[in-house]
Amino acid sequence: MPIYNAPTRDMQFILHDVLDVSGSGLPGHDELDRDFTEAVLDAAGKLATDVLAPLNRVGDEQGCVLENGVVRTPEGFGDAFEAMKEGGWTALDCDPEYGGQGMPYVLGLATGELFVSANMAFNMYQGLTHGAYSAIHAHGSDAQKAMYLPKMVSCEWTGTMNLTEPHAGTDLGMLRTKAEPQDDGSYLITGQKIFISAGDHDMSENVIHLVLAKAPGGGEGTKGISLFIVPKFLVNEDGSPGERNAVSVGNLEEKMGIHGNSTCVMNYDGAKGWLLGDLHKGMRAMFTMMNEARIGVGLQGYAVAVAAYQNAVAYANDRLQGRAVTGVENPKGPADPLIVHPDIRRSLMDQKSFLEGARMLAFWGAHQIDRANAGDEDAEALISLLTPVIKGFLTDKGFDTTVLAQQVYGGHGYIEEQGMSQFVRDARITMIYEGANGVQALDLVGRKLAADGGKPIMGFFETVKGFIKEHEGNAALKAGFLDPLKAASKDLQAAGMFFMQAGMKNPNAALAGSYDFMHLFGHVALGYMWARMAVAAQKALDDGTGDARFYQTKLATGRYYMARQLPMTATHLARIESGADPVMALDAGQF
Amino acid sequence: MPIYNAPTRDMQFILHDVLDVSGSGLPGHDELDRDFTEAVLDAAGKLATDVLAPLNRVGDEQGCVLENGVVRTPEGFGDAFEAMKEGGWTALDCDPEYGGQGMPYVLGLATGELFVSANMAFNMYQGLTHGAYSAIHAHGSDAQKAMYLPKMVSCEWTGTMNLTEPHAGTDLGMLRTKAEPQDDGSYLITGQKIFISAGDHDMSENVIHLVLAKAPGGGEGTKGISLFIVPKFLVNEDGSPGERNAVSVGNLEEKMGIHGNSTCVMNYDGAKGWLLGDLHKGMRAMFTMMNEARIGVGLQGYAVAVAAYQNAVAYANDRLQGRAVTGVENPKGPADPLIVHPDIRRSLMDQKSFLEGARMLAFWGAHQIDRANAGDEDAEALISLLTPVIKGFLTDKGFDTTVLAQQVYGGHGYIEEQGMSQFVRDARITMIYEGANGVQALDLVGRKLAADGGKPIMGFFETVKGFIKEHEGNAALKAGFLDPLKAASKDLQAAGMFFMQAGMKNPNAALAGSYDFMHLFGHVALGYMWARMAVAAQKALDDGTGDARFYQTKLATGRYYMARQLPMTATHLARIESGADPVMALDAGQF
Repeated sequence: MPIYNAPTRDMQFILHDVLDVSGSGLPGHDELDRDFTEAVLDAAGKLATDVLAPLNRVGDEQGCVLENGVVRTPEGFGDAFEAMKEGGWTALDCDPEYGGQGMPYVLGLATGELFVSANMAFNMYQGLTHGAYSAIHAHGSDAQKAMYLPKMVSCEWTGTMNLTEPHAGTDLGMLRTKAEPQDDGSYLITGQKIFISAGDHDMSENVIHLVLAKAPGGGEGTKGISLFIVPKFLVNEDGSPGERNAVSVGNLEEKMGIHGNSTCVMNYDGAKGWLLGDLHKGMRAMFTMMNEARIGVGLQGYAVAVAAYQNAVAYANDRLQGRAVTGVENPKGPADPLIVHPDIRRSLMDQKSFLEGARMLAFWGAHQIDRANAGDEDAEALISLLTPVIKGFLTDKGFDTTVLAQQVYGGHGYIEEQGMSQFVRDARITMIYEGANGVQALDLVGRKLAADGGKPIMGFFETVKGFIKEHEGNAALKAGFLDPLKAASKDLQAAGMFFMQAGMKNPNAALAGSYDFMHLFGHVALGYMWARMAVAAQKALDDGTGDARFYQTKLATGRYYMARQLPMTATHLARIESGADPVMALDAGQF
Repeated sequence: MPIYNAPTRDMQFILHDVLDVSGSGLPGHDELDRDFTEAVLDAAGKLATDVLAPLNRVGDEQGCVLENGVVRTPEGFGDAFEAMKEGGWTALDCDPEYGGQGMPYVLGLATGELFVSANMAFNMYQGLTHGAYSAIHAHGSDAQKAMYLPKMVSCEWTGTMNLTEPHAGTDLGMLRTKAEPQDDGSYLITGQKIFISAGDHDMSENVIHLVLAKAPGGGEGTKGISLFIVPKFLVNEDGSPGERNAVSVGNLEEKMGIHGNSTCVMNYDGAKGWLLGDLHKGMRAMFTMMNEARIGVGLQGYAVAVAAYQNAVAYANDRLQGRAVTGVENPKGPADPLIVHPDIRRSLMDQKSFLEGARMLAFWGAHQIDRANAGDEDAEALISLLTPVIKGFLTDKGFDTTVLAQQVYGGHGYIEEQGMSQFVRDARITMIYEGANGVQALDLVGRKLAADGGKPIMGFFETVKGFIKEHEGNAALKAGFLDPLKAASKDLQAAGMFFMQAGMKNPNAALAGSYDFMHLFGHVALGYMWARMAVAAQKALDDGTGDARFYQTKLATGRYYMARQLPMTATHLARIESGADPVMALDAGQF
């Protein structure tokens, strides 16, 4: 069975050595001292390794089953869900007014990584609930909040997001689900939704569906869309689940991965629903949650790969095959372990250097959200800009990392029993859902780049420039970190400049390069994160704070990223600068 | 259900416009005129599309089942196998002395692409048989050839290759399967082999296993290995299958993909076997087949992706979602088809430009094998050099292409019913088996590059240089093809130079860059192939031979490859030139 170890040491480094969360002056962050976060992360890590990880293969093998209209989750999921609720993990960063613990988002995200690495499909049940909680918290009336939030914070009731219809995915303007107003202020919802994660299951008393639908009078396209709360069981006056609503599971999808999560076709047959937020402003209500949800998916992308990587390292140390080219290293054995071979190292370093950079970027992003939630508009603009990068880049590279990890196993990696295939199959969805990565790239180049006259991206460049300037006297870091970061950042600026000039004349010139821009930005962002980690690690070494090996490892891993991953920016820039012509040269019939 | 259309038009272009096979002066190639190859490819295409492709999902869903020691293949496979045999497809490029049709390998490979695209798992039954046929043909005694080859050419009997053991994959020197000599000249084979494709099944009267085992007196490591023929049923004097041999299926592996092929654990319990080739020279016997087998896997890598690509194109044309940024293109519909969006084009062009280049490289490689088989030593050296590139690069990029194709489908691509997941899962194995791609890179840099004092690689550079010189007056192709090819080729030379200099001092400096070198070489090889195709297409246009649209499409697709894929060479070179230090910086405990 695959192993999993909670990387709490690395998390502590990011939270304290790099981000200095407890000193950041944000409300609630002062509580996050080293001892406190260590205790929280250790406890979450224990749940992840002891309870969730052992169920990961079970979930993949058994999947969910639809029986008599009810979805049965895999063996052990129910007990694990109870353990998660009892530990208060579902409430960690929720509003204390509704039973939450009011912790900062950055800490919630950190524990989330542990749970996702251990069992992504399982963690989606509470992840989706958290998304629905946030929507109701942001847009609900006081009565709605009082009715739903306490039960959702505790995950006694779980939540879902219902957007996609068979013919309408990215293009939500085409959706057909109807909402008919009733005299009592409620609506009757009718239509079919697909790909509804955690759409129904046997671990919750009630399922609170948030459903996009068209109410009369809103006009064409996305303008006519409103968001509705549609509970599986109508809620009685005393708050208990009552009459069954007219919503049912039409089918369970057979998917490539995340078998442990129930992906449902949901049928709404005149189901009773209540408007959430303003009429015909459903898209806006959705968008306010999107940064958080997309960063959550970016986290899934690398978190699954963390588990895959750990197993690849273990296998590379255990599996004896061949001899080191520089001389036998395991003379008592019939062969040396795989890890002596330079190409295995190349693969493991690609994995490790990406994953630690990804973790840093996700934590940094969460911290920006905490800043934004505390009213920092620059942080809001910055995280809005970076969100498609975090989602698209971390999931693409996270998937690639699971493939690299599987490859270390050779033929054994292709056998399901080993669990490496599952990591690949599970990670694959993160590139698709919550806005396919091509849509992220479109959002980045088509919307975020030009937002507010380009102020956010200029702010990012200034931040990086300021950082380089601040540390340019640091001789230990110049060649390994600062110079490569400067070069990569220049490539990103050149790409932005190209879009401005060429995109003026022809929008396709920018959009043809959007995907490469997202990756180029991702590399620069990770390069910046690595440079910040290097500064912190070098400082700890200089200060002699102990654990020198950890900091030396960090610096060596960072130097690898800068030397061997960051050069990708040049290729992405070349692709971008080739413009729209090569991309758009054929007509549809020529493919 | 996924579609598949046989790309025979493109094959005809490669065979005649580019390679001019019928004018190549090779024995048997004079028969390969346009009409003849068209007839053959059309017939093979019909079998592929009408019979094999409809069984691809069936094979994935049903898989193989082990019942009472016998493997049952999926529904319809048996009838399809009969159709393949009756059509003579298994015998196409086999020796006429044993019932084959004696066609050149390049034509066999072309039909192979069609069969693999339609149903990779199914085609492996005959593919493995062909490999075993080649081994017996090259190394068998006259009696052995007479006994086995006619039945294997017709696929009445199928064949397998038994190399891997649980603890010994790449490192065959560690294998433990024993061969004990008997007084009658036979051997008793005892041991366990794993990952045996087509190890047993219900479509063949007999299964002829070729088994690597250690006979006494050969010494340690690979030197002690011999190759044995071990039939499932011992062969009677009249040539019919007789007594059951002591070989049995221990288990069927549950794999990520190629479910339609039976991947067996094979147990040899004192099974009767006969030496094939020389005693203790088993590895050499294996190696003579390896170029062909590895090119066959390279072909699988891109052929599966061809089918995936075709479906992505169809989906991109059918699926209505969003509007073109340059103005509505489908005013009568609720939205424009996906294919209007630049990022979808970018994906489809990445796929198309890789796949057509890959096909050209595989056909060119097969033609080199035909030359080598006719005694051309330069061709032998060249294909030996390029074989790890064809295997490693085409399977890595082929897999990436299936992922791109799946991504075009958005959420629907993640649902098994659509078939896009299967393409990804099936293609994944090609990066692993027949020597994992890291081993291909090691073979390339550790062995092939230095072979014969570097003559083969010098020969390749001279060929490319000569080609550029020959066409440098061709103004239509200079900027789009010749200049980028020259730049990429320089990157490859610089990498080779780095290996020579740095690798002298430290072998790890070369091996740390081996994987990047394989990809760098792959890009240059495809760039060269595209330049050759461009010359042929431009000539056809200039000559006014008709079908101008085909040739214009070809040129536009090639220009895309040169502008947007070939720039990867710079990144690979940068990674290589960073040397061994970043890769080997950590000790095993630091991962």
